[in-house]
Order: sequence, then structure tokens, then C-alpha cells
Amino acid sequence: MAECIFCKIIKGDIPSAKVYEDDLVYAFLDISPINHGHALVIPKEHHESSATVPEETAGRMFRVASRVGVALKRKYDWDAFNLHLADGTAAGQVVNHVHLHVVPRGVEDGFRWNWRQLKYEDGQMAEIAGELAARVNADLAGK
Amino acid sequence: MAECIFCKIIKGDIPSAKVYEDDLVYAFLDISPINHGHALVIPKEHHESSATVPEETAGRMFRVASRVGVALKRKYDWDAFNLHLADGTAAGQVVNHVHLHVVPRGVEDGFRWNWRQLKYEDGQMAEIAGELAARVNADLAGK
Repeated sequence: MAECIFCKIIKGDIPSAKVYEDDLVYAFLDISPINHGHALVIPKEHHESSATVPEETAGRMFRVASRVGVALKRKYDWDAFNLHLADGTAAGQVVNHVHLHVVPRGVEDGFRWNWRQLKYEDGQMAEIAGELAARVNADLAGK
Repeated sequence: MAECIFCKIIKGDIPSAKVYEDDLVYAFLDISPINHGHALVIPKEHHESSATVPEETAGRMFRVASRVGVALKRKYDWDAFNLHLADGTAAGQVVNHVHLHVVPRGVEDGFRWNWRQLKYEDGQMAEIAGELAARVNADLAGK
């Protein structure tokens, strides 16, 4: 993926404020942070979607992101952190190389979303769960 | 953790709309969804924070969550999905058993956050990255 901006960052062709790197993942600061210290953890291998990231790499991404979150709390006195991933344009994905956001959070940091709580009709929840279960089980069977 | 509501769900002491279960993780529908089909993927082992989840379990959580997201797209024609984790009260964590949200998303689903883009002063970004790198590298060294 010669044209992918994140692949170029990994290769060093575009500079970045690197936080961590190992054989599987690369972590660096987002240039337009929600809060200062907001970082991105990406797989070195190019994947557009989370769906194709191998489990081993996904585990490393998650663990490194969490340790960056802990470092942000300890060093800069943040209270908490969010891990966030947008898979697809409608979910807010802008760069087509999968990236896990680490967003440091404070009690009164002014970052909010409309975390609405919808309802289900009677039986609707069990129906959806059953349909998803059939697909996910078939999908993950033997993998 | 006899009092943990998610541990009780895993044990079957509290009913849930189960989507998936294996040796490491359990997935079920959120009872107050952002969009219908909104699911939670949790480790069977009780962990309050993402920081103590073993990498193998974290990888499974991430992968199962992504496959649930794909199933939601294929079955219900959602356009995309978010994976989201709140680590700490200030980040929105309500139940103290780590859980990865899978939120199906549509182009015009009305779910929004104020995804603001802050700036850094000259040199500030490199300074923060350097301080975080020192901590994260020390933290992950040899693990």
C-alpha cells in the first residue's frame, strides 16, 4: 500500500510522534487530538478493516493501547481513557488503515456524545441475538 | 466476584441475549442499545480494567467484536461499526467488568459526538510522545 499514509508513517517516510513500536504494532500521537496525548495504535501490516487483523496482532494492539492509556493517567493525571475504533466511513473511519484510538479522559474534559439508550420490543432482542449467534458461530467455527 | 453483574450473566444467574461464547469470552446484546444490535464482548475472567486483560484474551475480544460487527452489517444492512471501550468512570465505564462495545452504525443514524480537534504548541507533541514512550517501553519490556 504505497499510497497509505499510515504505511508511510510506519516506514518513516512521513514523520510521526512515535510512542511505541514492536514487530506487530506501531503507536504514535494523533495530530488532531480530542485531548492532548490522544494516540493511535496500528498494525504494521496493512489492514483496512478490523475484520482481517489476526487475533495475535489484535491482542497486541489492545494491550499496547491499554498501556498507553495507563501511562497517560500516571504521567499527566488523566482520570480514565477510551479505546475507540471506527470500522467504515459511517462509523467515522477517515484513514483506511485500521487504527485503535487511545483517548485520555478527565471528569470535566468537555468531550461528550449522545449516548442514547434505545429500547427493544418484546422478543426483538432474543430474535436479533439468535440471528447474530448463528452467523458469528458459523464465521468463527474452526478458526 | 459474586456481586459483579457481568460475572452473573456469564454464569447464567442473570439472563442475557447471548451472541457468542467460547473458553475466553462471552458476547451478548446491550439492554439499552445505541442502535439495535449493539453488543458487548467481555472476558470470562473478571477484570475491572483493560490493563490487566491478558493479550490472548484481548485478541479474542477484539476479533469476536469485529466478527459481530460484520454480522450486523451483513444481516441488518448497517454501513459500519464502532468498537468502544471505556476504562474508568470518567471515560463512561458503568459496570466494573471490562467490556468492549460493538455499535452498528448507519450514515444517518443520529449518533454523534463532539469529535473536536485540538492543537499542539511547537515541540509539545514530541515532548509528550517521548515521555509516554519511556513509560510504555519500560512497562512492556520483557513481557
